[in-house]
Amino acid sequence: MPQILGANPAMRRAWLEHNTGHAMEAAAEMAFAPEEARGNVENLVGATQVPLGIGGPIRVKGQHADGLFFVPFATTEGTLVTTYQYGMRAITEAGGANAYVMGDALDITPCFVVGTTRDALALASWLDDHLTELQVVAAESTAHGRLVEIRPHVFGRRVFAQFVFGTGDAMGLNMVNLAVDRICRQVAEAVPCERWYLRCNYSSDKKPAAINLFRPYGKEVAIDLTLPASVVEAHLGVSSADLVEFAASGRLGTMQAGALGANAHFANGLAAIYIACGQDVAQIVNASIGFLDVELVGADDLYVAARLPNLVVGTVGGGTSLPTQRECLALLGCDGEGTARKFAEIVGATLVAGELAICAALANGRFIEAHRRNRLITAVAG
Amino acid sequence: MPQILGANPAMRRAWLEHNTGHAMEAAAEMAFAPEEARGNVENLVGATQVPLGIGGPIRVKGQHADGLFFVPFATTEGTLVTTYQYGMRAITEAGGANAYVMGDALDITPCFVVGTTRDALALASWLDDHLTELQVVAAESTAHGRLVEIRPHVFGRRVFAQFVFGTGDAMGLNMVNLAVDRICRQVAEAVPCERWYLRCNYSSDKKPAAINLFRPYGKEVAIDLTLPASVVEAHLGVSSADLVEFAASGRLGTMQAGALGANAHFANGLAAIYIACGQDVAQIVNASIGFLDVELVGADDLYVAARLPNLVVGTVGGGTSLPTQRECLALLGCDGEGTARKFAEIVGATLVAGELAICAALANGRFIEAHRRNRLITAVAG
Amino acid sequence: MPQILGANPAMRRAWLEHNTGHAMEAAAEMAFAPEEARGNVENLVGATQVPLGIGGPIRVKGQHADGLFFVPFATTEGTLVTTYQYGMRAITEAGGANAYVMGDALDITPCFVVGTTRDALALASWLDDHLTELQVVAAESTAHGRLVEIRPHVFGRRVFAQFVFGTGDAMGLNMVNLAVDRICRQVAEAVPCERWYLRCNYSSDKKPAAINLFRPYGKEVAIDLTLPASVVEAHLGVSSADLVEFAASGRLGTMQAGALGANAHFANGLAAIYIACGQDVAQIVNASIGFLDVELVGADDLYVAARLPNLVVGTVGGGTSLPTQRECLALLGCDGEGTARKFAEIVGATLVAGELAICAALANGRFIEAHRRNRLITAVAG
Amino acid sequence: MPQILGANPAMRRAWLEHNTGHAMEAAAEMAFAPEEARGNVENLVGATQVPLGIGGPIRVKGQHADGLFFVPFATTEGTLVTTYQYGMRAITEAGGANAYVMGDALDITPCFVVGTTRDALALASWLDDHLTELQVVAAESTAHGRLVEIRPHVFGRRVFAQFVFGTGDAMGLNMVNLAVDRICRQVAEAVPCERWYLRCNYSSDKKPAAINLFRPYGKEVAIDLTLPASVVEAHLGVSSADLVEFAASGRLGTMQAGALGANAHFANGLAAIYIACGQDVAQIVNASIGFLDVELVGADDLYVAARLPNLVVGTVGGGTSLPTQRECLALLGCDGEGTARKFAEIVGATLVAGELAICAALANGRFIEAHRRNRLITAVAG
Repeated sequence: MPQILGANPAMRRAWLEHNTGHAMEAAAEMAFAPEEARGNVENLVGATQVPLGIGGPIRVKGQHADGLFFVPFATTEGTLVTTYQYGMRAITEAGGANAYVMGDALDITPCFVVGTTRDALALASWLDDHLTELQVVAAESTAHGRLVEIRPHVFGRRVFAQFVFGTGDAMGLNMVNLAVDRICRQVAEAVPCERWYLRCNYSSDKKPAAINLFRPYGKEVAIDLTLPASVVEAHLGVSSADLVEFAASGRLGTMQAGALGANAHFANGLAAIYIACGQDVAQIVNASIGFLDVELVGADDLYVAARLPNLVVGTVGGGTSLPTQRECLALLGCDGEGTARKFAEIVGATLVAGELAICAALANGRFIEAHRRNRLITAVAG
Repeated sequence: MPQILGANPAMRRAWLEHNTGHAMEAAAEMAFAPEEARGNVENLVGATQVPLGIGGPIRVKGQHADGLFFVPFATTEGTLVTTYQYGMRAITEAGGANAYVMGDALDITPCFVVGTTRDALALASWLDDHLTELQVVAAESTAHGRLVEIRPHVFGRRVFAQFVFGTGDAMGLNMVNLAVDRICRQVAEAVPCERWYLRCNYSSDKKPAAINLFRPYGKEVAIDLTLPASVVEAHLGVSSADLVEFAASGRLGTMQAGALGANAHFANGLAAIYIACGQDVAQIVNASIGFLDVELVGADDLYVAARLPNLVVGTVGGGTSLPTQRECLALLGCDGEGTARKFAEIVGATLVAGELAICAALANGRFIEAHRRNRLITAVAG
Repeated sequence: MPQILGANPAMRRAWLEHNTGHAMEAAAEMAFAPEEARGNVENLVGATQVPLGIGGPIRVKGQHADGLFFVPFATTEGTLVTTYQYGMRAITEAGGANAYVMGDALDITPCFVVGTTRDALALASWLDDHLTELQVVAAESTAHGRLVEIRPHVFGRRVFAQFVFGTGDAMGLNMVNLAVDRICRQVAEAVPCERWYLRCNYSSDKKPAAINLFRPYGKEVAIDLTLPASVVEAHLGVSSADLVEFAASGRLGTMQAGALGANAHFANGLAAIYIACGQDVAQIVNASIGFLDVELVGADDLYVAARLPNLVVGTVGGGTSLPTQRECLALLGCDGEGTARKFAEIVGATLVAGELAICAALANGRFIEAHRRNRLITAVAG
Repeated sequence: MPQILGANPAMRRAWLEHNTGHAMEAAAEMAFAPEEARGNVENLVGATQVPLGIGGPIRVKGQHADGLFFVPFATTEGTLVTTYQYGMRAITEAGGANAYVMGDALDITPCFVVGTTRDALALASWLDDHLTELQVVAAESTAHGRLVEIRPHVFGRRVFAQFVFGTGDAMGLNMVNLAVDRICRQVAEAVPCERWYLRCNYSSDKKPAAINLFRPYGKEVAIDLTLPASVVEAHLGVSSADLVEFAASGRLGTMQAGALGANAHFANGLAAIYIACGQDVAQIVNASIGFLDVELVGADDLYVAARLPNLVVGTVGGGTSLPTQRECLALLGCDGEGTARKFAEIVGATLVAGELAICAALANGRFIEAHRRNRLITAVAG
């Protein structure tokens, strides 16, 4: 069986061309040196180029993000940037979106297999009793992650032990994996254990699961604002009442489909921003589980609120230091220390913008027209 | 409020730099002309470059894909390519993965609001009675999409009408939106309707919902194969029995977390392949809802099976004709007519490879070691 | 190990008293002869007496139920009857609830285990091709059940084959089990099969599962009506607007809890009516998965709608011919041929009554007061 | 509109007969005086008689229940008692089932509506800061319930505040409602609040929701035991390996159906025991959400484990003091102080018995035969 050979991207591309007849010419144009991508990929042959559009500005009034932001979207989906752009303009005209980081944690859940439920309960107690000790073990393997809590769940002869960490500016999965691997080895030495596994799906990273409704995973972000009736009409092309009416039907659709969360397309904005900003893109699966709600307040004003319990983001590590990704984080002012929560607030507000715009387009029946017109505009503006 | 101005990417970058102080230099290196991305993005300023690694070859024995394939992964996640690579090698050594497209459809669900349940039932009947007529309407708006079925669901004074289409090689969401918009206008003329909305969340595109377990959305792909005990040990570093044992714990984790589907990290491979191949990345949210199962058969051989009911893919339209994306599709032999199902089969087999590798690494306790070693190797091989 | 001995209830009670010291004196008072309960229970020792209250009348304007009905509730939960009573009065004052049976079916899903996915797909095709033949097999084992459709779902080397029946007036689970057992034996003779199981949890009888949102299981019932503002205020003690406002919060609670369905307490009425009317009480688990929605219409009128996709009921078989149970069915006019759908409509309308009342009590803050006052009234009226 | 009139059951029956033509003669035979059912029902007309069978003995080795128990089942479902009986015998022969109460709590979640997320976060903080004070308020309204914790969840301008109680031997919903109603009034006085609702569906009492997987609601019970191969074969008529094989298919059915929990028919045993023992029957909806798992251990022995996170039970209050109900609790030794956890352990072990028996009958293909034979036996033994 042929294996891809070559000590660098050029050699691998040559090998591929020789063996498959396919040249990777466009991919060969790289804005980064192979060494820069060392921790990000293996068998590197080049770069995929994703069109990058900018939306905004959006005014965010958060605890960490405060100001006007231009948001980068890397996408191949026509109308996506325009859609978010409409919503961002409406939010900014309304004075901005309030943003709060209500929770900030990351957990993984190893599974310890012992002999019986009695043994499992004993192991769970042991964990409860040795938190401080295990915090020290965690601290030895990671400077940035901090073991906050252990929540053991016993089922049969297994303990599913949720280890909850604070991860600072990093998304943190790697450091948490590393720390908990150490901890598991220590636990398994102290308590007789038939087997243990570092992960067992309980924490549901990158998987849609109900658990994602019930604890912060990454940043838990809240967004709210009130849009005056005039802003809704002028910038969303619909009355607040019509938008609320649409939301009522959408909610019934959501609930009858058995959805986790309730939103129209959080995933679209997440995918585009995550790609642009060097995030772990697969995490849009859990990050997109969240809630958006609209209500009439006052005289046809629109109160909008979102809860995003799983906004997993990082501003250091992962793909954040690659050149184009770093530029996008810098554009948001999220490339330095202590910027992860700021980034989370901006993302949250932007997602709300996308919800407003798509709901408006569906409420006023111009969804298709918007898609068409947008392309026209694009064609002109090139 | 400042709006991004500029007739082309360079002018927009200049505007941004002038107004924000941030230059987008790395992003300026584009492998495509702005006109080429016209339908893919608005407010274009450049390109995000995502490192592209190649894994494989993987042998697929599908109805549509038959042969050895090198699979492109665009990712910033270290160890991802290596992980898939291990599984692909094991599969290929075992003779390849069988692949089947069991279903192929895309639906959207407009919501018609009438006066009462009686009216809603009447509208539902009307839809049942006018399928042929509405198929003609659909055919007028799209040459590739084909209206196959209408499934009206009545709740209160609303009809949630699922319009099911075949979409050929295109992912198809745009054409389906367009066709159903026309249909809705026709329906609303024929049957008095208080309001109607083109979409209402019921079809759950890009959203995690239980409905995604119950009908094909995109391609429904089945994969299976039996890995001989020797291949499992040699290529996955674990016995089949140990892997099955791990899966038992993983399944209990999955079920207790209230997951939709049961897999370890379908989303990782999906994200990387979708980015590389110009797919609509947000659709990994539904595409990652699927099932992986392993069983012992014979004398410690491993039977592996997957069901991916929501593999939304396209080989025309969307981002598929952008230069780097097109190269990746070409590498898979999926850049011509009639290749969407082939692509789906390759993706399905690759996802199974990733499952085998990660489960093996978790089963044998070398997950962390693998992550570490991989980087070392990468560092050397650059 | 002692086993309960005795040829009849009295002897078993004597045995129990002798061996445990516990006399079952109250339970000894039976309104039925032991022979009458032969098919309903084993090791019979007597009867549990559940207090029986009557609510109503409720006006139902269904396709099958048309008129005023007094509804029996067997319960030990104080305030339950009163709560439903309030709602029934409001519905009746509003002119009655419309009721529709939108679906009527029962399915079970045997699992056939074969060698590979290829074999499973072949078995699925075989089933598709032999529907008529298998309908004959079904007809031989049940006069009342009718095999309508087979929906095979392939995962790996297994076919999960949903056999969908019409069951007439019977709840029908026993007859369907019997018919499908025969069918499975026939299938296993025709197609080589490693194993097969009559049931495998897919149909989720008596279990809460997402599948219960997507197909009729038992009767699928729709209810709707508009309550004039004056009726809402006079009979529910709240304005329509306040009730709708409460529902908005309730919905957010429902969605954030990850609920299947959306209602306040369908299960309460179901449990009480199912016990009173000899239904299979465990089926309230699936029957309670349903949706209730309220909207403002006109000038503060209240539009109410429900969808109950899993209302599993029967008016023959099971406990329906026991004396007290039969009396309750007779009171509803549901003790003869062709009454199952009528019964389903009455139950559906009654559940809506219970929703209105409890939501009103929660909306106006008198929930606790209602519970207290009710007991006072009860004490007097005894 | 006619209303049911009458000062006592006899007068109400007379009224009903006069107005509807239906006499409630069988229901007139009551084992309790109307006064005894005062807190349990309104508009009392008599009693529903549910056939009562006894199963057992089952050996339970719990922290609270230790010994052999005869378990009462009030049911109209033929074969139910026999099914459980088979499993109970197997468990007892295997030496008994271990039982543990891992959690014990009940919560309700009022919803406070304020102006904005900022206000909501402030209210949540206020709750955190005033736990002690609110514990005093709770203590004033209930002697038995104890406020343990408040978990506020903010979404938009709402606080969904979970108030978690210990409830002792009572099921406790009424006392908790009462205490939290008081608390809410106090909160609303201290913190400006637009509206508040005592309940809003978040706690999902009597409703199937994902939240029920993640916190104890009622008693959280764990059961485990190992059945020797010989006991499995002799008493369940199947090998351990065959049973485990069946469970593999059942699990795939469960997961593909999108189930909450994983069991075959917890609801059956729950319904029958809850009716017999005066429990709140509608709570089988949440109580039936639980997990059962089987594994091969040693040489074809069977390890069985269950987790029942929502076993809501009480041995005082509700229907527990009615004559037939009290007799059943007494038979279990669960009619005095401090018996609720004992009762929970017995119920848990019995549910496991039912799982073993039905899985065995499905695994060995004798499910239908068992149903038939059982009736035959019943007919003889009647």
